[in-house]
Parts: sequence; C-alpha cells; structure tokens
Amino acid sequence: METLKREVCDANLKLVEYGLVILTWGNVSALSEDGKFVVIKPSGVDYSSMCPEQMVVTDLSGTVVEGELRPSSDLLTHLELYRSFAGVGAVVHTHSPYATARAQAELDLPCYGTTHADSFYGAIPCTRHLTKQEVDQAYEANTGLVIAETFRHRKLDPMAIPGVLVCKHGPFSWGINCKKAVENALILEETARMALITTQFSPQAEPAPQYLLDKHYFRKHGANAYYGQN
Amino acid sequence: METLKREVCDANLKLVEYGLVILTWGNVSALSEDGKFVVIKPSGVDYSSMCPEQMVVTDLSGTVVEGELRPSSDLLTHLELYRSFAGVGAVVHTHSPYATARAQAELDLPCYGTTHADSFYGAIPCTRHLTKQEVDQAYEANTGLVIAETFRHRKLDPMAIPGVLVCKHGPFSWGINCKKAVENALILEETARMALITTQFSPQAEPAPQYLLDKHYFRKHGANAYYGQN
Amino acid sequence: METLKREVCDANLKLVEYGLVILTWGNVSALSEDGKFVVIKPSGVDYSSMCPEQMVVTDLSGTVVEGELRPSSDLLTHLELYRSFAGVGAVVHTHSPYATARAQAELDLPCYGTTHADSFYGAIPCTRHLTKQEVDQAYEANTGLVIAETFRHRKLDPMAIPGVLVCKHGPFSWGINCKKAVENALILEETARMALITTQFSPQAEPAPQYLLDKHYFRKHGANAYYGQN
Amino acid sequence: METLKREVCDANLKLVEYGLVILTWGNVSALSEDGKFVVIKPSGVDYSSMCPEQMVVTDLSGTVVEGELRPSSDLLTHLELYRSFAGVGAVVHTHSPYATARAQAELDLPCYGTTHADSFYGAIPCTRHLTKQEVDQAYEANTGLVIAETFRHRKLDPMAIPGVLVCKHGPFSWGINCKKAVENALILEETARMALITTQFSPQAEPAPQYLLDKHYFRKHGANAYYGQN
Repeated sequence: METLKREVCDANLKLVEYGLVILTWGNVSALSEDGKFVVIKPSGVDYSSMCPEQMVVTDLSGTVVEGELRPSSDLLTHLELYRSFAGVGAVVHTHSPYATARAQAELDLPCYGTTHADSFYGAIPCTRHLTKQEVDQAYEANTGLVIAETFRHRKLDPMAIPGVLVCKHGPFSWGINCKKAVENALILEETARMALITTQFSPQAEPAPQYLLDKHYFRKHGANAYYGQN
Repeated sequence: METLKREVCDANLKLVEYGLVILTWGNVSALSEDGKFVVIKPSGVDYSSMCPEQMVVTDLSGTVVEGELRPSSDLLTHLELYRSFAGVGAVVHTHSPYATARAQAELDLPCYGTTHADSFYGAIPCTRHLTKQEVDQAYEANTGLVIAETFRHRKLDPMAIPGVLVCKHGPFSWGINCKKAVENALILEETARMALITTQFSPQAEPAPQYLLDKHYFRKHGANAYYGQN
Repeated sequence: METLKREVCDANLKLVEYGLVILTWGNVSALSEDGKFVVIKPSGVDYSSMCPEQMVVTDLSGTVVEGELRPSSDLLTHLELYRSFAGVGAVVHTHSPYATARAQAELDLPCYGTTHADSFYGAIPCTRHLTKQEVDQAYEANTGLVIAETFRHRKLDPMAIPGVLVCKHGPFSWGINCKKAVENALILEETARMALITTQFSPQAEPAPQYLLDKHYFRKHGANAYYGQN
Repeated sequence: METLKREVCDANLKLVEYGLVILTWGNVSALSEDGKFVVIKPSGVDYSSMCPEQMVVTDLSGTVVEGELRPSSDLLTHLELYRSFAGVGAVVHTHSPYATARAQAELDLPCYGTTHADSFYGAIPCTRHLTKQEVDQAYEANTGLVIAETFRHRKLDPMAIPGVLVCKHGPFSWGINCKKAVENALILEETARMALITTQFSPQAEPAPQYLLDKHYFRKHGANAYYGQN
C-alpha cells in the first residue's frame, strides 16, 4: 500500500507539472492490486506540501481504512468508475481548461486526427445533465453512475475511450495505472485544444476517416501494435 | 503590522508567480485585524526587488502612517471596498488578460459550470461606465463606489461573489485574507478564460443550472460544506 | 560606450525572457548620449551566447565604427526612427505573435481600455503597405520612412504612442531608453492579445472613452503624473 | 556515427524545450554524410531519460544496423523523404498544436507576412488524404510518398518550403541538418499560430504581396543573402 500511496501522490503532482491543475483542482486515485482498496488524494490539500503519507485509503464502499485526512470530495465518483469499468486501475479528475470548456459547451469531442486516434478510439462522449434529484440526493455517486450510463447506452468500451466529459463540470480519465490515467488526462486536454483550433481554422472540419482511426489506434493498442518497445 | 506587511508582499509576488501580473500591473492590500489600517503595495515598484519593508501603511482615510514610498495609485479604490464590504480582509487588482478583456467587452461573466460555481456563487458582474465627472473628480475613490453600487443595486453578496469587472478597466477581487483574495483573482481569470473557450466551442452555451451551482458552492462554503479539511 | 553595449545586450535578452522573441527574431538598438552613434545587436546571432562585446556600433549613416560582426539587417530602419523621432533613445523590433498578427491583418490597434491607455495615448497605427519599388530599392530604410510618414500624416506624437505595426511585417516600439522601449514592446504585445480576446467576447466592443484614456495616460505621464515614485 | 547520434538525440530534446512535443509525440532523424545511413529516435521512449546510445541506425531500406531498440514507427516516412528530396539532411515530425490543427482542417498555410517569408518561400502545402488502401497497405511509406507527390504535383522546391502538413495527421519539416530541421518545425508551428490570430483579427486577411515575400526570403537565402554572419 505504501508503494501505491507514492504512485498516487506522484500522479497528483504530475497533474500540476503538466499544467492540468491549479490550486487544488484535481485528484487521482488508484485501485489496489487485489481490487479491494482505493488510494486517493485528500480533499483540498495544497500540492506544494503534498506527501505520500497524506494519501487516504478506503474500501470500495468509501469507508476510510487508513489516513488521517478526509478523502477527496469526488471519492464516490471514482468508486463508481472502478465498480462499473473492469480493467480500470486509476482514475483522474481535473478542471483543465479546454476539456472543461468542452464539457461546459455540452458537446462530445470528435476525433479530428491521428493525435486523438493514437489514444482514444473515437469521439470522447459528453454526459447528459444530472437531474436536480440526482444532484441533491447523491451528487458524487450519481456523477459516476451517469458516466457509466453514457458508456453503456452508447455501447462504448471504456478501455478504448479512456475518458469522458461530465456535462457542465469537466473531464474524468482513467487507465490501467496512474501513469496511463494521467497521460490520458493530458491527451484529452490537448486534443480538446486542438479540436478548437481545428474548427477555428475551418468551421466545417470533418472527423478523420474510420480507416485512419483504425490504423493509428491499432498501431499502438492490441495484438498487432507495433509502436513502442513492447 | 510586520506580519501583515510580509503577507501583503508575498501576496503581490504570488500574482507574478500565478501569471496574473506583468511589469507593475497589479496590487494587493490587506486590512489590519483591528480594522483601522491598510497595508498596500507601493506604486510602480518592480516586483523583482520588492520586500516587506517597502509596503505602505495608511489609515482608512488614505493618510500614510508608515513607509517611505508612495502607496499604489489604486489605494482609494481599495479603501472604498473595505468601507463598503464587511468581512473583506484583503483586496487584489490585476490586469490579467481574460478578465481584463471581459471588462473591456463590458459584459458580466456567466457561470458556465462547476469550476466557477465552486468559488463564485453566480455571474461575476461588470460595472457601468464611470461618468466623465466621476473620472475627472475622484477617479480611484469613485471606482470603489461604483463597485459597491453594482453589488448594492443587484443585491449581490460580496462575500459570495468575491470579485468584479470594472468596465473598460479590469478585475478586482477580495477575500477574508490575502491568500483567499489572490486565489479569487486567479479563479476569476481562469473562469473568464474558460468562458471564452466555452462560447468558442458553442456560441449558444447556457449557464449551469441553479441546482448545480447550489450544490458546488455549498459543498465548499457555509455550514454544510464538506470540501477540504475543516 | 561599454555601458551602452551592456544595456543593449541586456535589453535583447530581456525580449527572450518576456517571451517576445524566439530564435533570432528581434533586435534592440540604442542611441549614444551625444546622439552620434547607435549600438545595435549583430545579425542572426544566437541569444544563448550573446554578450556585450558582440554589439555593433555605427554612426547615423550606418557605417560600422566598432565591432567585428555585421549589424542587424534592420539597422537602417532603426536609424530612420532616430532621425525622424526626437527624444527616442532606443528602438525595439520583434515578431511577437499578437502584434505581428495584427500587422498581418493590416489594422490599427484600438485602445479598448486602461491597460492600453496607461502606456499608449490612443490607437497604435498600422502603416500602409510599402510599394514594390520601396521594397526593391531600399527596403529597410523605407520601412523607417513609412513609419515616420504614418506618424506625420496622422499627426501622432511618437513619444505618446511609442510603437507601430508595420503592415505585413510586425511591431516596432521605442522609448527614451532600452528599458522603456522593451517595456513598450511587451505592452504592445499584451494589448494586442487583450484586444483580440475583447472582440472575441464581444465583436461590437467599443474603444474606451476619451476621458478615461486622458485620465489613465496622464496619471502616468507628464507634469501631473502621480503614478510611481518620481 | 556517434556524433550524429548525439546530434539526433539533442534535436529530439530540443523539440521538448521548444514546446513542440509532449509525451513521446515527435521524432527526429538525420542522414549520415555519405547518404547511406539514417539515425533516428527509438519508438515510444521517454524524453526524460533519452540518451545518444539509444538512437537507432538503419540503412535506407529501413534495416536496423545498430541499436538495441525498435526505431520510430514513422521511420519509413523519413526514409521516403530522404529518397525524394535531394539535399535534406534531417527530418522532424511533431504533433505541435497549431500546425496539427491546420493539418486537421485540411488547409494549406498561406504566407501572411514576413515572419513566414523569412523561412518558407510561399504557402506551406497540406497533402491530400491517404486512401484506405494506402493506409492499410504501407501507411508510413505511403505518407512519405504522398508528401513527395504533393511537392512534385505543385512544382514546389522542398528546400525552399521545408515543411508540409499531412492531412488529418500533422506537420513534417526538414533541413540541411538537425538544427535547421528543428528550427523549421518551430517556425511552422509559430506561423500556423500567427495565421490563426491574423484571420481572427481579420477574416479577410490577404497573403503578403509576392515582392515582399521575395525580399524577405532572399534576404536570408541564396547568393544575395545579407542576413546573419555568413
């Protein structure tokens, strides 16, 4: 658990290094190897003094089992994602500006080119609004449930599209581990930024053709991947 | 008073670190605990050599009681805000680009999502123009009075909306102390930037629903807050 | 002259620090106190290894009187500005992105607010195109002459509007010394950026009223200035 | 070959320093002086730990002759460019945001001013789409062939326009050596950014006149160049 605490702490600091987070506007969690515990950033703690010992350990119901601080207020969203999406080992939430603005615009993020296709196999969905009742009764858990609903209804594979825009809120991303989940947060932000610039250059810009998306995504993922050293 | 001078000096330097200020384009002041004195940045001094000893202490009428340098030219605006807004312990003025541009556009800043709602309980107002007479006779004091008028006329709570856009000029923000006032300056800039990107993605973007604004604001503020460690 | 060489060298490096210049895309020169010589950056030299000894000294006709390197290719433009604009002690040229883009758009830069008004007393002009003949025969000198013509025809005071956009090329700025000329280059870039954001927020944005421009400009300049410590 | 490995490694790191690359989104290669070998970045390796020893050496058919790691997945594109474009000593590929977005918008990049004209003698072309067959059969080699086709069909000189936008993908640039190829990648990104800002200021912005393009390009290139120290 100490190793995982360090990983989660480092991943939170990486968000700052990547320029995805200011103040205390982000959080990372990770699932223990046995799938029984979650390590998450404490709520509202300054990044400048953050250390592994401050990380909070909870079980999957959200009960704190280790740590002196209160867990991130978004904990229940993270837990719903671990429950709903098999294979997810880490979850990231930020308010990075372009992805957040796209969520505020209530629009999916189309795949305009290979930069997006290398990491997300198709458009990144924007959820529906949460209802007043969903917000009032169990806001954080319902945020996770609405994310899961979005993927289920649209028949999307969360491991092939490892991120989402929560309507009027901002991005969540995930991956098999902290490193991948944080990278996906960065890629989501960068592709949102490039998407805006693309449509500013050409309001009629079209998504990339399916065969190019296939080529780039499967060059890096799956059995026939030939990118990287593995 | 020496502690407060250091706080005010540090807060001014924080504006540079946050990228909110270039050259000498910003100032921070704070109110002493007894409410009788204000500590403020000197006028037109380079941030690179700024030190606590240079901070200027005045009474609430603006008379310098300590310090060798002339106080910030915006002193009288700050003083009006302390007089008008109970609970304000520090005031910040910057020319940060997005907030300033929004002020130049003469438009309120709507709340498009939770990033804004976490810290500002609703749209951030843009003041009316100062009249020629107001500018010619007592420009800085009248700037403060027009800010106060804006909150009074619109029945806004300055502690729930801790910032304003002064028409054709730029942002002022405030808080219970220097740290909060500076954070609000950063959040005002960041939400202005996100608001622009939001409407660039979707010119028809709508403000967040009231129930989401309520949820996020009161998750962090007031008796039922559950964000952070307090 | 050694002092002036150091000043000119430092000013060139400041352009990099301010983010106004990449690669070798800028140059600063200064006039000697007796008005007989100009110290200017050498042409195409890397900023990373730039030192005061490399600065080139010329007379006002452009003849090199000291230095082993070729002077900046824009030397003759600088010389025309010293000849035409009394009181100018230093000249700066950059390709900073927003000011350059405004020059490429062939549009004056209106004064949308106090940030601009604090340093430039009104709209910053964009010159006419140079003709083919002007470009072919004496490009750099004619660039200077067209800048001077712009100020003369529009009856602008170059010390009150210490910068210009050269059509399809980019910004030049100036001041009584290197420090001021470089600051004006930064302010020109920042106001160009803010002007774009302003019109993106509101395509109908209007310039600031004359009385606000008067107030801010004369708060910092002239006999009745009360900004800063002098 | 050890010298060239160091040059290629340094050039890859320069992409990060210039802000043109995040994660592993770029690659640089160089041709050996005898024209028989290519040194290229390994695939998917972190920039933070990159060292000259990791660089991969291949012959012009793409067979690895030195190095333990797999070469960049874009190797075959680089090789096609060395085969097609005489005089090219180094090739760079990035996903820099503005150039990539322009490629996603499927539009050439016009020359709006002297910043562009100083380094690229006219509009930077955007290729046609690769067909499904071209993507499926030999994607990377065909990318190089389509770039070559673009220059051949439009009768463009690749040494005068040392860069291209690959439709829906991103920019490639080149030069006589690594330093020039990397500089051209930076200039391509910066001119793409300035082009967007130019048209945001003025949607009707026109390209620079041919005589200004001639002046600036030939001031820095060819027999009559007078920029720099050579």
